[in-house]
Amino acid sequence: MNDRPAQPETFPLTPIGLIESDFPDKFGIPRQPGLAAAARASLVLVSPFDDPLAVRGLETFSHLWLTFIFHLSPQQVAPARWTPLVRPPRLGGNAKVGVFASRSTHRPNRLGLSLVELVEIDTTHGVRLKLRGADLVDGTPVLDIKPYLPWAEARPEARAGFAPEAPPNLAVSLSPEAEAVLSARPDGDELGELIRQVLAQDPRPAYRRTPEARVYGVRLRDLDVRFQALQAPAGHTTLRVVEIVLAAGRT
Amino acid sequence: MNDRPAQPETFPLTPIGLIESDFPDKFGIPRQPGLAAAARASLVLVSPFDDPLAVRGLETFSHLWLTFIFHLSPQQVAPARWTPLVRPPRLGGNAKVGVFASRSTHRPNRLGLSLVELVEIDTTHGVRLKLRGADLVDGTPVLDIKPYLPWAEARPEARAGFAPEAPPNLAVSLSPEAEAVLSARPDGDELGELIRQVLAQDPRPAYRRTPEARVYGVRLRDLDVRFQALQAPAGHTTLRVVEIVLAAGRT
Repeated sequence: MNDRPAQPETFPLTPIGLIESDFPDKFGIPRQPGLAAAARASLVLVSPFDDPLAVRGLETFSHLWLTFIFHLSPQQVAPARWTPLVRPPRLGGNAKVGVFASRSTHRPNRLGLSLVELVEIDTTHGVRLKLRGADLVDGTPVLDIKPYLPWAEARPEARAGFAPEAPPNLAVSLSPEAEAVLSARPDGDELGELIRQVLAQDPRPAYRRTPEARVYGVRLRDLDVRFQALQAPAGHTTLRVVEIVLAAGRT
Repeated sequence: MNDRPAQPETFPLTPIGLIESDFPDKFGIPRQPGLAAAARASLVLVSPFDDPLAVRGLETFSHLWLTFIFHLSPQQVAPARWTPLVRPPRLGGNAKVGVFASRSTHRPNRLGLSLVELVEIDTTHGVRLKLRGADLVDGTPVLDIKPYLPWAEARPEARAGFAPEAPPNLAVSLSPEAEAVLSARPDGDELGELIRQVLAQDPRPAYRRTPEARVYGVRLRDLDVRFQALQAPAGHTTLRVVEIVLAAGRT
């Protein structure tokens, strides 16, 4: 009666494009798209998919879905590597939930899904889609683009268990030295906005949510942004940018 | 400066589960999820992913994303098989748009994305997720499940070019003979609702949108539902179910 194979076949998927973004590495990336609107990204299509015909009509949509691979996360498909539980940052890094109840990057098939804003389509050389609000590390392989359909996919009434709203924002401040570095750059204003949006999400590991002396670094564009968690007068934590330096390995 | 490979690697993806649904074949399937709320489907996880721990906490979400393979569509990854333009039914099947501006099943990597309602999680034998509103053919291989996050993913203000709203519904009527077949079945009421919802979407090929003598068939559960397009008094097309028979090859 049931003629399905016990072990279904494997599907070899080929990237249709690669992401270029403000996030050279994973640390600091907002945990959901749209949380750092100042984050720029481009999706550059690769051959043979870099045909302007393939995006004809896409400019009439304001938002797109990208399906991509979390290529910096370990493979989990081999049974030995598979772990069914994860600790979402949302729950303080202590409670465990099922991987399929989470948006964790550590998951079977390492598939990611991001809703991004489409800013511009550039078909001067191949196809480049300029995006806003992307939470994607530079070099991310993208498997598919789909237009967002608000009448089917906007469900504001949906119940979202342990993640019912956007995570709270932390206060962010910059030292005078850090402000001076930004003032000297042509992209200083934009970068300042990006730094504030990224740090407001608290990129520290989930188990570090209190003030501490340790200095963290997050890489944005060509910079290493170093910050500390300070106790603000009202008892809240503020993230303070102590210095901004050119990232090692960048020219 | 750019050390990315010209041809990115291929990612072998493994299904985590398979769909069991009311749609034994492609014809008749609503073109977006949520359009046929009476459609039942289950996602049955396969080994080693059929561990109840993997869905712990998922019951606190009302809606899920499924990423799956359109396994009945042809592969498009080999350059020779790749066609950048498609004819969406939405545009009457005449105008062509880019495949990435469409939700066509004929696309590179054959990836599908569906927002479905989670009705129940059954962990009696492995893991079975009971779903509502799914637009998935029976046997569909599913690659990932993610919870829906309304605060990030409900964007009712999004602009959706040539697909700004749900497609219009056609009127549907059933012959007395068809009604009699339904009355004799325990699932008759539910099936009647499903038939009306599926036909209201006009499952005929996009270039056939006028009244015609031809009888079409759509398979739902174990039945073959045969219908015709009639001219209604007000000039609109009505789809009329002329008979309902047991589908060939079903027991």
